[in-house]
Amino acid sequence: MKVTVRGRSRHYRTVTFDAAKNAVMLIEQRLLPHEFKVVATPDFLATARAIQQMVVRGAGAIGATAAYGLAQGARVFRSSDLKNFVAHVDLVYQTLKSARPTAVDPVNAMRAVRATMQTGESVAEQQSLALAAAEEFANEDVRHCAAIGRHGAKLIRPRMRVLTHCNAGWLAFVDIGSATAPLYAAHEAGRQFHVFCDETRPRCQGATLTAWELAQQKISHEIIADNAAGHLMQRGEIDLVIVGSDRTLGRTGEVANKIGTYTKAVLARRHKIPFYVAIPLSTIDWNLGAGRDIPIEERAPDETLGAWGKFARNGEFGYVRIANPSSGARNPGFDVTPAELITGIITPEGIYAPGDLWKNRARLGFA
Amino acid sequence: MKVTVRGRSRHYRTVTFDAAKNAVMLIEQRLLPHEFKVVATPDFLATARAIQQMVVRGAGAIGATAAYGLAQGARVFRSSDLKNFVAHVDLVYQTLKSARPTAVDPVNAMRAVRATMQTGESVAEQQSLALAAAEEFANEDVRHCAAIGRHGAKLIRPRMRVLTHCNAGWLAFVDIGSATAPLYAAHEAGRQFHVFCDETRPRCQGATLTAWELAQQKISHEIIADNAAGHLMQRGEIDLVIVGSDRTLGRTGEVANKIGTYTKAVLARRHKIPFYVAIPLSTIDWNLGAGRDIPIEERAPDETLGAWGKFARNGEFGYVRIANPSSGARNPGFDVTPAELITGIITPEGIYAPGDLWKNRARLGFA
Repeated sequence: MKVTVRGRSRHYRTVTFDAAKNAVMLIEQRLLPHEFKVVATPDFLATARAIQQMVVRGAGAIGATAAYGLAQGARVFRSSDLKNFVAHVDLVYQTLKSARPTAVDPVNAMRAVRATMQTGESVAEQQSLALAAAEEFANEDVRHCAAIGRHGAKLIRPRMRVLTHCNAGWLAFVDIGSATAPLYAAHEAGRQFHVFCDETRPRCQGATLTAWELAQQKISHEIIADNAAGHLMQRGEIDLVIVGSDRTLGRTGEVANKIGTYTKAVLARRHKIPFYVAIPLSTIDWNLGAGRDIPIEERAPDETLGAWGKFARNGEFGYVRIANPSSGARNPGFDVTPAELITGIITPEGIYAPGDLWKNRARLGFA
Repeated sequence: MKVTVRGRSRHYRTVTFDAAKNAVMLIEQRLLPHEFKVVATPDFLATARAIQQMVVRGAGAIGATAAYGLAQGARVFRSSDLKNFVAHVDLVYQTLKSARPTAVDPVNAMRAVRATMQTGESVAEQQSLALAAAEEFANEDVRHCAAIGRHGAKLIRPRMRVLTHCNAGWLAFVDIGSATAPLYAAHEAGRQFHVFCDETRPRCQGATLTAWELAQQKISHEIIADNAAGHLMQRGEIDLVIVGSDRTLGRTGEVANKIGTYTKAVLARRHKIPFYVAIPLSTIDWNLGAGRDIPIEERAPDETLGAWGKFARNGEFGYVRIANPSSGARNPGFDVTPAELITGIITPEGIYAPGDLWKNRARLGFA
């Protein structure tokens, strides 16, 4: 998407590759929204570290980063011994995989790159195919998000007020995003609308990342406390909800997403407001049979007990403790929204009722 | 309630009066939970400033502070001219009233003090009656909260997990609190239970004040993000909700309270969890006929765009900006919960269905 830095606008993907320098180029997301900076990881170890330390985060974005990282690691091999090369690539793969051990996207992305590589007959050919496959992975992520945008934009009518939760934006993908894609497509088409960004405690990705993205695209928006959406719905000030998904059950249509998503779905139902989930196909889990079996990660209490921000007094960025120092916290990272509360699921292949994913599984990439 | 400072426990009211020094003694709430300090306001102007600058906040607490402030101001009058004395007291009254122009409790409290004073025949007698009336106002607040505790404690069974929102605790009253009163009474009776404190963005009164209160009383509790309650309810981890109220409509049973209360009521209904509101009689509005006519204060965006806390690096307390600097915020301070979502209203006179307030109005203080 377009980013304006010191008055100059340029298009940026979240993740790109500089073939001449053999470096992965990443938007340093930990500095946003306070500073925009693109960093280069000069070797695959630095790329793995960037994934691990959340310089880059979000399903599609870490998938593409791992794909490029695998190509980056493959390209430094300096002999024509194919057997040694395969062993070398395997080490690179393991290193990148271990950077975020529970994430599924880096693994899927690297598997795709490796499958393409293996069609090459020499080290040089495999090195070249690796980069091409990584580029193709990133381009496909962009195409899928653009398709989500095309389908989802039809839902956004002039003067609508749309609620979002967390960041399923272009920063979480290579470009465009999932939940934000319909917004960007409708904006591109010249439609006027307004977005309410849930702050999304505890990590505040709505107040930091989504709000920054929308500001860059000059889309009308306001941040609200997570507590405020119910009141705005009650007063008739929200017309549509679009969120992302971390895991979507293909068999039941249930959606696991950032904590607080379920609450917004319950409120939307009470107020008869359409509630949509935008997903790339990679988030569909075709195996699990019940949302209650999705393990919900309990994250560090410090996230709930404080916040990261820029200290007003001196502009320094850091963590502040908000809560009573002698109290603890429960911090579930995700929740599960049942299919009955979801109006539709926006995929690159069109919009489906959550109960219709399974019967359309061939079209939706079930392997 | 009992406060432990440097290993020593003592009972404190939020607001008391030192007759020898003619000073109002207040717990400095802006320093909590990071520091416990009692400050003296040496004259009525300092008392008005303490109300204005939120050294003391919460309905009952600012009511008692204003009552003491009026007595404090009356007591410095140094002549026996009754006419001049009445004019002097009126100025004190206006000053204290203007400290929080939209609050109703200081006005009601000072009216009660003035009515009692006027039964005295000399300046000296009226001065003495003023202090007695202020003490009586504070004592009545304590008795009412204790009665809420007695009635509400019956709802809390062993091993229950209770959700609270914001701070309707003893810091918001002279002692004991409204929503916390049943918790303190059940704890006093030796019952074991667990409290989840909603953090309560944007000002985080749950994470700071309620959590600090419960920690002082050694009641088992954890702070949660406002986003997390729905998930906990879904997993069967919450058995009861008790909140306070800023304004309760006597004619309809609707409750205006801190933003986010309505959302918790909607979630509680979906999960068939009892939802109670604890109120002193002073929050009942017997005039207004519909909750949608309650004006909802839109507060400063900075509350939503950042937070107050202790900077981890150097222990300094201050404001941090969390959100994207070029984004704005909507910040409604309150919301309205309809009567149909409320299981019962816990008053000093017993627990009533919200629809039964009006027919019991004589008992509930309707004048």
